[in-house]
Amino acid sequence: MSLFGKDFICTEDWELEDIQKILVLASEMKKDPHNLRWSSVLKNKSFLMLFYNPSLRTHLSFDMAVSELGGHSIYRSSEMSWSKSKQGIASSEALKDMARVMSRYVDGVGIRMCMNAIKQYGEGHQFVRDFAHFADIPVIGMADDRVHPCQALADVMGWSEKISSENDINALKGKTLLVTWGSSGLARPWAAVQSHLLLAARMGMNIKLAYPEGYALDSEVRQQTKIHCEKNNTTYEEIHDPNVGYEDTHVVYVRNWVTNKAYEQGEFQYQAEVDRSLSLKEWIVTEAKMRKTENAIFANPMPIDRGREAEEAVIDSAYSVIYDVAENRKHAQKALLALIFGA
Amino acid sequence: MSLFGKDFICTEDWELEDIQKILVLASEMKKDPHNLRWSSVLKNKSFLMLFYNPSLRTHLSFDMAVSELGGHSIYRSSEMSWSKSKQGIASSEALKDMARVMSRYVDGVGIRMCMNAIKQYGEGHQFVRDFAHFADIPVIGMADDRVHPCQALADVMGWSEKISSENDINALKGKTLLVTWGSSGLARPWAAVQSHLLLAARMGMNIKLAYPEGYALDSEVRQQTKIHCEKNNTTYEEIHDPNVGYEDTHVVYVRNWVTNKAYEQGEFQYQAEVDRSLSLKEWIVTEAKMRKTENAIFANPMPIDRGREAEEAVIDSAYSVIYDVAENRKHAQKALLALIFGA
Amino acid sequence: MSLFGKDFICTEDWELEDIQKILVLASEMKKDPHNLRWSSVLKNKSFLMLFYNPSLRTHLSFDMAVSELGGHSIYRSSEMSWSKSKQGIASSEALKDMARVMSRYVDGVGIRMCMNAIKQYGEGHQFVRDFAHFADIPVIGMADDRVHPCQALADVMGWSEKISSENDINALKGKTLLVTWGSSGLARPWAAVQSHLLLAARMGMNIKLAYPEGYALDSEVRQQTKIHCEKNNTTYEEIHDPNVGYEDTHVVYVRNWVTNKAYEQGEFQYQAEVDRSLSLKEWIVTEAKMRKTENAIFANPMPIDRGREAEEAVIDSAYSVIYDVAENRKHAQKALLALIFGA
Repeated sequence: MSLFGKDFICTEDWELEDIQKILVLASEMKKDPHNLRWSSVLKNKSFLMLFYNPSLRTHLSFDMAVSELGGHSIYRSSEMSWSKSKQGIASSEALKDMARVMSRYVDGVGIRMCMNAIKQYGEGHQFVRDFAHFADIPVIGMADDRVHPCQALADVMGWSEKISSENDINALKGKTLLVTWGSSGLARPWAAVQSHLLLAARMGMNIKLAYPEGYALDSEVRQQTKIHCEKNNTTYEEIHDPNVGYEDTHVVYVRNWVTNKAYEQGEFQYQAEVDRSLSLKEWIVTEAKMRKTENAIFANPMPIDRGREAEEAVIDSAYSVIYDVAENRKHAQKALLALIFGA
Repeated sequence: MSLFGKDFICTEDWELEDIQKILVLASEMKKDPHNLRWSSVLKNKSFLMLFYNPSLRTHLSFDMAVSELGGHSIYRSSEMSWSKSKQGIASSEALKDMARVMSRYVDGVGIRMCMNAIKQYGEGHQFVRDFAHFADIPVIGMADDRVHPCQALADVMGWSEKISSENDINALKGKTLLVTWGSSGLARPWAAVQSHLLLAARMGMNIKLAYPEGYALDSEVRQQTKIHCEKNNTTYEEIHDPNVGYEDTHVVYVRNWVTNKAYEQGEFQYQAEVDRSLSLKEWIVTEAKMRKTENAIFANPMPIDRGREAEEAVIDSAYSVIYDVAENRKHAQKALLALIFGA
Repeated sequence: MSLFGKDFICTEDWELEDIQKILVLASEMKKDPHNLRWSSVLKNKSFLMLFYNPSLRTHLSFDMAVSELGGHSIYRSSEMSWSKSKQGIASSEALKDMARVMSRYVDGVGIRMCMNAIKQYGEGHQFVRDFAHFADIPVIGMADDRVHPCQALADVMGWSEKISSENDINALKGKTLLVTWGSSGLARPWAAVQSHLLLAARMGMNIKLAYPEGYALDSEVRQQTKIHCEKNNTTYEEIHDPNVGYEDTHVVYVRNWVTNKAYEQGEFQYQAEVDRSLSLKEWIVTEAKMRKTENAIFANPMPIDRGREAEEAVIDSAYSVIYDVAENRKHAQKALLALIFGA
């Protein structure tokens, strides 16, 4: 199996056909979670979860994925204070030593590092890359400041299920995705939306990216998304009006994210970001806007800010896939773990 | 099985005969913890424990209960900061979304929310009820501000064992219980003692409730306790003297609890409660007082404040059931989980 | 099995032949971690880990040890605030009650208490001893302020492996160990180095203990180490020069540790200790110093302060056993648990 023993830090690191293998297996697993074909794939295997930032959804979905594959997981969270020391991000123990020692105890490691666990955008992603460099075991990104690859897997899986009842992994090809920024009282990092743009473009979707002034995402990620679209002969467009872009759209994905200034003062400016975001009230997905689409499905990686990112009626509508996508985290991660660690 | 798939938030929600089913099964399980009849009842089942307040006894007893039934438990504690956000108790994510997402990952949820996790008496209980309303899976109360149903199960199980060597579930019928407030350096919530009053009255005990001025419990709970006594033709009495009530008593249960003013300033006034409580030194169970009883057993749900709630000699006496009751938490919860989640 | 049901708090409590039994079994387990001979030795057994101080290495190695033996472990850490209460170390619940209640739930307990969890040197060790006194189940020390017995097991196992390729447990007999203090930005407790001196001396090594003025370890531990050396007809020497002692040495073990004044003000003076330690820059293990030895192996119990306790080139050399020793924590603890709890 070509994925055996590999890291999964960014979807860009993997061939599209490998990602499709994950999605196909995830769909099978979803239909029969406890099938003997996979219920002991991780027997005698252990997976360590390092949360430098807490996350309920990521914790539960990885824990259950490992458990349903017959493996053993270990959770570390509040004790993880890597970034809080005076001597900078790697002071209490060299990352090299940490990665090498863990490689002696467990079979794989998942890492989450973003938000207030870092001081500058990019540090979290670099930490995961460096850890993987020193570790002798596979490393899986559980969200850093740059990307959130497992969320992207769950996203495209959820949309495919809704658009094509037969779970056709080509269901998204040629469809149009509107990724729109949303107002929120929660300041969200860029990771989920960026992973999502990269993968959706790669899977053949037309991309519309809508956001207010000052909320441009990582220019490299946007550039790479554009390149995927060009290669696929699909369109890529950026929009700065909250009322534009809904026409001819098949998937509306709303997400709040922070400005480029979130780390300007050397630490995550949560409250300043929230204040600015709350003032941009017109950036909300409404029923009226959804009516302009091609019966689009509504998506968000959660947590969702009800009444700000979208109207309650949109969130609770029949075309909303938010809970399905959340559930898919478990199935997609199960498939991923089985392909990386399975015999 | 009539209990399959049900919530267990308050003993009042369940028929007495269902509670007796739990107690009978718990006694069987206690005799043979690893019997194959129940050692895989929770196979492929997962139970999530959400502790908004930490608790050693509740954590260990639930963890072991799930483990001994062959299930998988997940523990969340220090990351749980539901109440600490500025926008009130449900800000970081709507309770509806949280409950629905968790329902996609696990088979059941236990929730603890009391003390400083809430701002007003009643909020914790309401949170558990609301969670259960939105969740598609059974919810078990692991202590809120109002009730602690699993503690009550362990209590009555422990007393029955001591009073009737044959574990007769009717052993408590017609017996007299003195519930007395105790001085303490630990400010304890009302939940344990209230669940306990409700269940003891319902199981046919005569109730004497003794407490100093200012320490009246929830009036609805006391009213409901009275109604159970009337229905059972037993007596209900309130006492405000620390030396009265021991005569003709079969069970002496001491517990510190806070005043009605604990939440008056919008947060749990721990130190003010402790200071007031410590000044009421005569509210202690002594050997001399115990000698006035009908060879009563001594009970307390723990942690117990040695030398304040009761004399050391009472706590360590042969008629003390505190460790047996603590142990019964595991057995009672095992039986409960088996009946709710078992096939 | 003579070790069945015993505590393991200090290596001094056990006969040397029992310690050798652990080491022999640990070597066998290392060669075949999932062999059916031990993969279900802890079936239906549970081990509770109480971390009053967090520790990644100890957490992971015990968790994996229990898991690979088929047992169930429970981790408690950030909720553990025994020492933080106003009424002193045992306030929230009497230690007696805590130990007795836990004895009703689990089959064994591991305890870590050192550094800032205590107020005076010795309190942590006494806590573990007192807990064991009250508990009805075996207690294993996972590092207190005085000793760290499992680290010592992993140390001697790692050196034996390197010195004698056949894992001869007598490999250390007559060999010479230099234990040298090292400069560091991390203020380390005495436990690891002390357990290590006691066991190495007992196993027949010549001991050289090198440290700057003000860094004398526990006088009782040093005295006991001397007695072991006398009994074994080996040498014991104390050195106060960072450049002396490398000649004729087979194992160089570097470790930072705090002064006697660390607890002088009633709490652990982390920053003052770090400041003083950083000023003693000549106390570093260099390649030049290592060249003076008898091709000595380089050891440290980790975390290691790169560039302060030792040069990077020493740490990453072929003669460094730091990762092997870290890995051995798991194997040694597996053997220990199997002998204490196994049927």
